[in-house]
Amino acid sequence: MTGFPDIKKISYEGPQSDNPLAFRWYNPDEVVEGQTMKDLLRFTVCYWHSFRGAGSDPFGGATMQRPWDDGSESVDNACKRASVAFEFFEKLGVPYYAFHDRDIAPEGATLSESNANLDQVADVFEAEQKRTGVKLLWGTANMFSNPRFMHGAATTCNADVFAYAAAQVKKALEVTHRLGGENYVFWGGREGYQNLYNTDMKRELDHLAKFFHMAVDYAKEIGFKGQFLIEPKPKEPTKHQYDSDAAACINFLRAYDLMDHFKLNIETNHATLAGHTMMHELEYAGMQDALGSIDANTGDLLLGWDTDQFPTDYYLTTQIMLVILKYGLAPGGVNFDAKLRRESFEPIDLFHAHIGGMDTFAKGLKIAALIRADKALDRFVADRYSSFDSGIGEKIEKGTVNFKDLETYMLDKGEAAANSSGRQEMLENVINRYLDRV
Amino acid sequence: MTGFPDIKKISYEGPQSDNPLAFRWYNPDEVVEGQTMKDLLRFTVCYWHSFRGAGSDPFGGATMQRPWDDGSESVDNACKRASVAFEFFEKLGVPYYAFHDRDIAPEGATLSESNANLDQVADVFEAEQKRTGVKLLWGTANMFSNPRFMHGAATTCNADVFAYAAAQVKKALEVTHRLGGENYVFWGGREGYQNLYNTDMKRELDHLAKFFHMAVDYAKEIGFKGQFLIEPKPKEPTKHQYDSDAAACINFLRAYDLMDHFKLNIETNHATLAGHTMMHELEYAGMQDALGSIDANTGDLLLGWDTDQFPTDYYLTTQIMLVILKYGLAPGGVNFDAKLRRESFEPIDLFHAHIGGMDTFAKGLKIAALIRADKALDRFVADRYSSFDSGIGEKIEKGTVNFKDLETYMLDKGEAAANSSGRQEMLENVINRYLDRV
Amino acid sequence: MTGFPDIKKISYEGPQSDNPLAFRWYNPDEVVEGQTMKDLLRFTVCYWHSFRGAGSDPFGGATMQRPWDDGSESVDNACKRASVAFEFFEKLGVPYYAFHDRDIAPEGATLSESNANLDQVADVFEAEQKRTGVKLLWGTANMFSNPRFMHGAATTCNADVFAYAAAQVKKALEVTHRLGGENYVFWGGREGYQNLYNTDMKRELDHLAKFFHMAVDYAKEIGFKGQFLIEPKPKEPTKHQYDSDAAACINFLRAYDLMDHFKLNIETNHATLAGHTMMHELEYAGMQDALGSIDANTGDLLLGWDTDQFPTDYYLTTQIMLVILKYGLAPGGVNFDAKLRRESFEPIDLFHAHIGGMDTFAKGLKIAALIRADKALDRFVADRYSSFDSGIGEKIEKGTVNFKDLETYMLDKGEAAANSSGRQEMLENVINRYLDRV
Amino acid sequence: MTGFPDIKKISYEGPQSDNPLAFRWYNPDEVVEGQTMKDLLRFTVCYWHSFRGAGSDPFGGATMQRPWDDGSESVDNACKRASVAFEFFEKLGVPYYAFHDRDIAPEGATLSESNANLDQVADVFEAEQKRTGVKLLWGTANMFSNPRFMHGAATTCNADVFAYAAAQVKKALEVTHRLGGENYVFWGGREGYQNLYNTDMKRELDHLAKFFHMAVDYAKEIGFKGQFLIEPKPKEPTKHQYDSDAAACINFLRAYDLMDHFKLNIETNHATLAGHTMMHELEYAGMQDALGSIDANTGDLLLGWDTDQFPTDYYLTTQIMLVILKYGLAPGGVNFDAKLRRESFEPIDLFHAHIGGMDTFAKGLKIAALIRADKALDRFVADRYSSFDSGIGEKIEKGTVNFKDLETYMLDKGEAAANSSGRQEMLENVINRYLDRV
Ligand SMILES: [Co+2]
Ligand SMILES: [Co+2]
Ligand SMILES: [Co+2]
Ligand SMILES: [Co+2]
Ligand SMILES: [Co+2]
Ligand SMILES: [Co+2]
Ligand SMILES: [Co+2]
Ligand SMILES: [Co+2]
Repeated sequence: MTGFPDIKKISYEGPQSDNPLAFRWYNPDEVVEGQTMKDLLRFTVCYWHSFRGAGSDPFGGATMQRPWDDGSESVDNACKRASVAFEFFEKLGVPYYAFHDRDIAPEGATLSESNANLDQVADVFEAEQKRTGVKLLWGTANMFSNPRFMHGAATTCNADVFAYAAAQVKKALEVTHRLGGENYVFWGGREGYQNLYNTDMKRELDHLAKFFHMAVDYAKEIGFKGQFLIEPKPKEPTKHQYDSDAAACINFLRAYDLMDHFKLNIETNHATLAGHTMMHELEYAGMQDALGSIDANTGDLLLGWDTDQFPTDYYLTTQIMLVILKYGLAPGGVNFDAKLRRESFEPIDLFHAHIGGMDTFAKGLKIAALIRADKALDRFVADRYSSFDSGIGEKIEKGTVNFKDLETYMLDKGEAAANSSGRQEMLENVINRYLDRV
Repeated sequence: MTGFPDIKKISYEGPQSDNPLAFRWYNPDEVVEGQTMKDLLRFTVCYWHSFRGAGSDPFGGATMQRPWDDGSESVDNACKRASVAFEFFEKLGVPYYAFHDRDIAPEGATLSESNANLDQVADVFEAEQKRTGVKLLWGTANMFSNPRFMHGAATTCNADVFAYAAAQVKKALEVTHRLGGENYVFWGGREGYQNLYNTDMKRELDHLAKFFHMAVDYAKEIGFKGQFLIEPKPKEPTKHQYDSDAAACINFLRAYDLMDHFKLNIETNHATLAGHTMMHELEYAGMQDALGSIDANTGDLLLGWDTDQFPTDYYLTTQIMLVILKYGLAPGGVNFDAKLRRESFEPIDLFHAHIGGMDTFAKGLKIAALIRADKALDRFVADRYSSFDSGIGEKIEKGTVNFKDLETYMLDKGEAAANSSGRQEMLENVINRYLDRV
Repeated sequence: MTGFPDIKKISYEGPQSDNPLAFRWYNPDEVVEGQTMKDLLRFTVCYWHSFRGAGSDPFGGATMQRPWDDGSESVDNACKRASVAFEFFEKLGVPYYAFHDRDIAPEGATLSESNANLDQVADVFEAEQKRTGVKLLWGTANMFSNPRFMHGAATTCNADVFAYAAAQVKKALEVTHRLGGENYVFWGGREGYQNLYNTDMKRELDHLAKFFHMAVDYAKEIGFKGQFLIEPKPKEPTKHQYDSDAAACINFLRAYDLMDHFKLNIETNHATLAGHTMMHELEYAGMQDALGSIDANTGDLLLGWDTDQFPTDYYLTTQIMLVILKYGLAPGGVNFDAKLRRESFEPIDLFHAHIGGMDTFAKGLKIAALIRADKALDRFVADRYSSFDSGIGEKIEKGTVNFKDLETYMLDKGEAAANSSGRQEMLENVINRYLDRV
Repeated sequence: MTGFPDIKKISYEGPQSDNPLAFRWYNPDEVVEGQTMKDLLRFTVCYWHSFRGAGSDPFGGATMQRPWDDGSESVDNACKRASVAFEFFEKLGVPYYAFHDRDIAPEGATLSESNANLDQVADVFEAEQKRTGVKLLWGTANMFSNPRFMHGAATTCNADVFAYAAAQVKKALEVTHRLGGENYVFWGGREGYQNLYNTDMKRELDHLAKFFHMAVDYAKEIGFKGQFLIEPKPKEPTKHQYDSDAAACINFLRAYDLMDHFKLNIETNHATLAGHTMMHELEYAGMQDALGSIDANTGDLLLGWDTDQFPTDYYLTTQIMLVILKYGLAPGGVNFDAKLRRESFEPIDLFHAHIGGMDTFAKGLKIAALIRADKALDRFVADRYSSFDSGIGEKIEKGTVNFKDLETYMLDKGEAAANSSGRQEMLENVINRYLDRV
């Protein structure tokens, strides 16, 4: 079966193309900073939004037309759906995909049934990976949809649910390992609280740390060498999620001695829900050696929920690529954790959306690389802090002065040397200059 | 000179009083959980808002009528103002006050002049403390108003400004020590960035850590045993402030080995600007042994800036006191870092505002204590997590099971034990029941 | 069949009661400002959240235990559900309920089937109303859940969908009329746009006005004398909803000559999503004679979506009742358009939630009435504006002076008379004084 | 005196220029849609931010280096400042400027002194306009900075303040008229309330309407034919401002019979503070014939206050220009109501900022014009609504069908014709395609 009979493999046609089903910027083999775009960007399609997202929202039902999907929760349907997904990956030309356990295979009546379903469908995925060369960026376990997880998974008040979650992650780790997954992600959508009156936050976080240590131990046992990632999000569905932003995640990892084993999977719309720019979260994680991978979407800052829109803003992708080129991304990738608007319900909209996202990132990459090549920002920054390269500044950085020394220095001087303009407006113009130039 | 000639010492008259210049709930010697309200709440007036706040805002000038203040930046005026402030503290009956160096004494033309001014005014404060018994909860240095700090103080790009800030904190520490300050606070209103294009975040944070270590060393040197506190705030005036919330502060303290020396001064309106409830920030800090003190105000959640309003909501103060009674507050206190609306410009409004805030906290304390006495929430919570007190839950907590054990357990069981209702609505009704009962 | 076998009719036991299944404040026959609480508050249960809400959210499925509901979309199930609902209304003691057409009866394969289903179920509602004396506050048509309405109903780009919506409202009006509904509500959850690039806003609003005029005409034709209401909401599910707040609705009504036929149904959580307080929206509508009814819930201002929580805050209900006592509410009511948290999944939680909401409104009513009886705010306000009661102010109000007169007056005077303090803090303390006193 | 001795007139050098002090896109004589860029964009420098903005914020003092300004509130200083401003206008090459009365001339001890100051400084402005050809887009009166306006100007509770405001607007209208101002703006920063407990909203709005009618009458009397404009803003400095958004303004204008006399001056950052996109506010005003002029800045959607930043985002300016090209702008203009970051304190930063803003608008104009020339959006939109061009849709628009006809139609048909995809993602890609192409 084919899901997209009328669509050929999307090819690169260059910026002047009017063909909406061609890349104008993403040219997989084009080399930027010594790597191909393909290897640098590591584009990933997420299975959940693109192949399980039905277009429902809190006020309305499914809208998506997916002729290949009979709507049933059968293993057979799951296998057919998988084939169409790989057709999509191929036609789009992405090297990676990502999944949740319950996306790809239906939950059974018991845990063992669920596991059996997962194994059966994983066979298809394995075969399709082999056939197409498309690889698994990461796997994860859905521990938020089933009502059993209403109070959390690793942070539930129900010990049995903790046990269930442990068993589920064990299996998801095994399947991820079998399919050559390069990372394993935890998104704790129900790990948090709705209400502090009924919550023991300390006990819940202790449990969460135990859970992660068990995962690390089990990965070691089975030889899974992929990177563990936590995906921060401050809220939605839960009132407060413990992994609220990069700072909260890293503080938790430090507190429970998990920094060696985990990095972060940063998502644009989660950053903004936490009140941060994506660039902030990336830089903050990167400087602490905790930048693992990104979920590449965008949000609507005038709406207060995770809209998970496809990124089409060159400023956003330029900022993201500036940080990624600085810290590197592999074994992470650029995962389109983004969904179509529910009014964009035709199969072809999947292509429009992904092509737009890929082109936007590719152009952002080119802009960022040009800025870096010219040191258009780096020179300004180096110069701005140069008072710390010698004199009193150097002594401060070397730690050879204390409060008394600095007081003596300043009492003598009376007033600090003058400041220089921060030149924010000029630097924003510089960004536009490079945007125009690519 | 008297600032409030028509106002007598505010006394406790009980809930039925119609006298707007009496306490209806704050009864300083009333004992709650074995301590007097006075010792438990440790009310503090902040010098800046109440004696330096002029009522200006970004669109308009000073409105406040302060007949005792000649508007000059003279030492003489500063000394007179200090006397009126202590008259206020006494008439209000608060045991503590707090200040910034530049609030209490004018900045001079040079650092040494500024220091001399500070010493001179501190003499008056010392005498007034002695005369009245009012004590200093904490001191701090204002490193944000002077244009020299436009790019930050400890995180500036200008090494001289770092040196200046160091000298200033050295002096502020000395004055705080001399006045018996029980804490010393850092609020980094300019420690952050306006723009990532011109910023080296890592270098700035390294500098900030150096600065704090120097402060710790110098405190040791002069024998200052007060608690160091960081006051989180995510933004305003700066686009991003590094001490954005409790998580960001604690992560920083962990990363730079400062956890033994610092706790947090949590402010309601800063918590909400960061997207958190005050109760969350308090509990999060408390469970990590980092709850130091609170800035007791409230914000307007429909406005996006720090309105620093006086707290008059019993729900808020009940929540705060539930956490404070759990973790304790001393040597911290309940500091009214709150300002009058600029339309409330008469001296008497200072009384209305503080009386309202103190009464609201006193009633919140009584409600919280009653809830705790009845274990009205604690029993519910203990019961809710009881599956971790024995059986599989106990094993999880003890660390005697791993993923394989838990899978075996759950494969055998097939499905987790049923969940119980979280009963949020019922618990909210319980809070109202206790609010009604006090 | 009974839905709540273990629960008896909820009775009033007074503030000291510890019984969570009793009213502590809502005493239906207690007289306030000359009316019984029952007649003043006109409490209404909404059928959708309480009897069709399953507890799903964008990340998880149904959680609610509803033993009386077989989960099918059959007419038979709909009829049984209706009986349980009336059992709930009776046990709770509310005089009103409200519904959407598709809540009470399943959608059929065609419009005529849907209409037939609706008629059949309406028989049960009619009989239950007769049996119990519970009345219909309002009906409405669900024109947002079915995918056909993805682009809007009256503002769709698809003329057939407009026609469908017209037919659906015609039927819903007839059923509302038959059941004695006292109002008819329009909530335009899909009347708006996701994106301006593909939208003709003017054409859509013209269509919306046509739709409303047709509804007015048809109501006249069938003799329906109930009040038409529009329920403002700024967003969610749609990016922008045309009825974004009271101002947008009233402007639309004025522009299209509909002011004589429509009032507003104001909801707390919609007000706050639009950046307004509930009290603002009520006063704004009231002063323009457009306050029709209220949806009584509350939101979480730190979350960016409509949480539709049950109201349990006395300050909120006091503010609401201050305005309602001023402008009156009938034929509108206090409709609990509120839903249980998805973790509060047991049938009994429906009682906890509604009892809490009703008690909170009843106490708010008593506080508001006491404030009004004492003119505790009114006297302050009258005094504050008294400069407009005589002299130059009176001339301004009477329109007997113009710019030149006023300039002459002020040139002569040189400066305006002094202002008085706005006393916000004192007034907030007054509110607490009355809250304490009830 | 010269303010910018080292800066020559800014000239157009084209997109490839690396000169930060040249235009890359703004080419004043380039023709777009039959008009020169200069005539289409009508760029305006605002006097307040650029020549009176000192860089202070709520936490810190003035930072701006303005060597030409002696910091005094003298008429002499005001006159010198005016000359430098015109030097700036000339070197930048803008055709317009805008001012508040109190920006250009100091307030005196009495109203008559203030008026005399204003007249004296206006002489300089008149001469400079003559000398340079730079014109006045609009004037306005500052009725928010002086403490007398703390409770409002036209909506104050103090009748004398109303009279004062009337006299002040009378004079500002005269000066605007004398200087050939093409518009007159009202921004009601204090027209609103801080608190509903002390406010009579209806009485205040009645007063506001009286005030506007007096202004209309006086304009007629003196022959001022400029357009009156209201500038919406929802909050800041006031808790709630009556002119909260376009809808609130237009509703007010309709209610008080002022629609013939007023249009709106829409500002980007005010739109977003109200929860709307700028494009929405423009389209909403435009379709009601109420789009008058724009304040061209941008905000930071992660900050909750009016940052008034210079616009440097091509997407924003493209959206704005799409609407402006549709409805026209003259006699309004593109007024940079934007301020430098306080860290951008050198005079040259004024040039960087304005050049960036002008270039960003010029490129946005070119992108919008290209999209319009190709009907790249218009064709899609026309097609999307085409079901209303004939058949049942045409009848709906013509008003020849009612609810019964539409029910008959739909009962017969059973279900509506299928919807089409809204294609949001494809359309966003189209915008990028045109952005790339300019
Ligand atoms: Co994600
Ligand atoms: Co997301
Ligand atoms: Co504070
Ligand atoms: Co604050
Ligand atoms: Co509602
Ligand atoms: Co709602
Ligand atoms: Co403006
Ligand atoms: Co503005």
